[in-house]
Amino acid sequence: MANMQEYRQETLKWLAEEYHDLNGSQYDILDDLPTPLEFSRIVHIGRPVLIRAGAIPSSSDSYAWSKQWIAERMGDRAISVAVTPNGRADAVTRGADNKLYFAEPMTQKMSMTALLETLSSDGSAATLEPQHADEKSGEVHYLQSQNGNLFSSRYYELSGEEDPSEFEPLREKPDAVNLWIGDEKSVTSIHSDPYENIYTVLRGSKQFTLLPPTEGWCLQERRYPHATYVRSPTTSRLELVPSPPETPLVRWSSVTDPTVPGSLPAEAHPMHITVNAGETLYLPAGWWHYVRQRGFTVAVNYWYDMEGRGMSWVWLNFLRGTEEPPLGNPEDADGQRD
Amino acid sequence: MANMQEYRQETLKWLAEEYHDLNGSQYDILDDLPTPLEFSRIVHIGRPVLIRAGAIPSSSDSYAWSKQWIAERMGDRAISVAVTPNGRADAVTRGADNKLYFAEPMTQKMSMTALLETLSSDGSAATLEPQHADEKSGEVHYLQSQNGNLFSSRYYELSGEEDPSEFEPLREKPDAVNLWIGDEKSVTSIHSDPYENIYTVLRGSKQFTLLPPTEGWCLQERRYPHATYVRSPTTSRLELVPSPPETPLVRWSSVTDPTVPGSLPAEAHPMHITVNAGETLYLPAGWWHYVRQRGFTVAVNYWYDMEGRGMSWVWLNFLRGTEEPPLGNPEDADGQRD
Repeated sequence: MANMQEYRQETLKWLAEEYHDLNGSQYDILDDLPTPLEFSRIVHIGRPVLIRAGAIPSSSDSYAWSKQWIAERMGDRAISVAVTPNGRADAVTRGADNKLYFAEPMTQKMSMTALLETLSSDGSAATLEPQHADEKSGEVHYLQSQNGNLFSSRYYELSGEEDPSEFEPLREKPDAVNLWIGDEKSVTSIHSDPYENIYTVLRGSKQFTLLPPTEGWCLQERRYPHATYVRSPTTSRLELVPSPPETPLVRWSSVTDPTVPGSLPAEAHPMHITVNAGETLYLPAGWWHYVRQRGFTVAVNYWYDMEGRGMSWVWLNFLRGTEEPPLGNPEDADGQRD
Repeated sequence: MANMQEYRQETLKWLAEEYHDLNGSQYDILDDLPTPLEFSRIVHIGRPVLIRAGAIPSSSDSYAWSKQWIAERMGDRAISVAVTPNGRADAVTRGADNKLYFAEPMTQKMSMTALLETLSSDGSAATLEPQHADEKSGEVHYLQSQNGNLFSSRYYELSGEEDPSEFEPLREKPDAVNLWIGDEKSVTSIHSDPYENIYTVLRGSKQFTLLPPTEGWCLQERRYPHATYVRSPTTSRLELVPSPPETPLVRWSSVTDPTVPGSLPAEAHPMHITVNAGETLYLPAGWWHYVRQRGFTVAVNYWYDMEGRGMSWVWLNFLRGTEEPPLGNPEDADGQRD
């Protein structure tokens, strides 16, 4: 069995090396949005492409998507915001009991105006240094709900009257999926999605650190118990509360920051792509991504189902491995096997 | 080392099973030629598609591509024809010394009229039973040159005057690559190509037996010494003449006829697709194909380079294996290692 894992590891290293020898670590840059035929070929190649054109018309307008522009439209509408003490939502975090958990943020309803007030100053003058979190609470706010907050596919089955979206006043294109509003205090931990991802930055900039699907083994996935940030009734501070033991373990990378030197093995070839306001990134299905932002940042991303027929799905499953990875807290080996 | 091969074998079986569970053994049928965008998506999926429309305009005309129609245009022009004693060109064949060889046909210049006379009777009444080979010589003729006999890419760099093609009078579309003229006496042994293949039958019918790239391991590739059919000056009969020992061994499937029950392991899922006159098959790069024909058969195929970027090339290499397969004549183990 040990041999088996060694052989699988050798196979994964061979595939990663061959893939890199053939494709390198470069990415293509397009000045305009591709045609449907061009995009179909880009998806077939499955490499990231930076498009120096926005998929949102107003993204060229310097006033559009500014704090003031958003506040004027959203006013005091209640929106759902992810709140954490450290800006690391959906990330592996050490709990009060010193164990590692996959930590989900607290979701809090607040007004757009209240959210904007907690975020870094807007505009090109945004500091590059992380600011202090919201002085009042020490908490970090990020509009990052990934359930189609700008549009869900359900929207198309609904009439305008019963539109479930909280963001109707911001809607500009009928196929946008998620709206992201935050600043450098929020970071997205490295993960991959089974979706073709079109990511347009409207304000500020996002810094993506990418690994191809062939290098997923470099990220050492582990299984972590689930926990959620909850506001304590007594201290009114956020506490990380473990979920009931029957909650399935969450499979996640044990590399918390792939930009830290030495956090990845020598065989990894991370790509760094900065997407500025008005630019669009094509992020192929299965690519691993770690995302930081600079100052006040607004983005919209479009998710499309990947092509399920043919080889793609089988290869992604093979590269990621169908066997369960080790436990993130080895001492749980007795109790936690699920 | 033995373990390594066992693990690789297990991995290949797992991939083949997952691929089949996801995709089955069906193939899509289209009534019309796909648009470029539709075709790009078809190539991304990489599954065979039968198109009930010809890529050659005249393929709907019942007189076009008949023996008479071809003879009227080609007359006595000399063309290059593959000649074998058994209809199995580019196939593993046992030599007079009882050893197995990869046998190349003799290439003989003859007139189109002379070729047509050796082939089965034309038209829908073509017998389904193999006919006797050319009574006079016992030899089988097949126009099957695969070097772009109708067009080569070089053609596009040449002016009309210096067109190297022997088939200018038959040319109807500028991107046709190979013209195939033969009958049921000729069979194409199972192999795969690194090209996207568009195959249009103009007369008669072709029966393809296909295996996906994930099932290449079922075909047990071996390395065979190279040999060529040569006409004996004394007997004037074809003899299989081994090439010089320094000639590289040829890697080829040891399964001579995958349609014979028991010739493939139980894990194989061969697909059988008959392509009739006026129909077109999209044969994806890397798919294994064994091809038979019914009666007098004319076909044109178009080869396109496969997309070299991304994963496709790496996966095909992994599935086929980069290590050299065993020798086809194990007793050669001492002398023949190359």
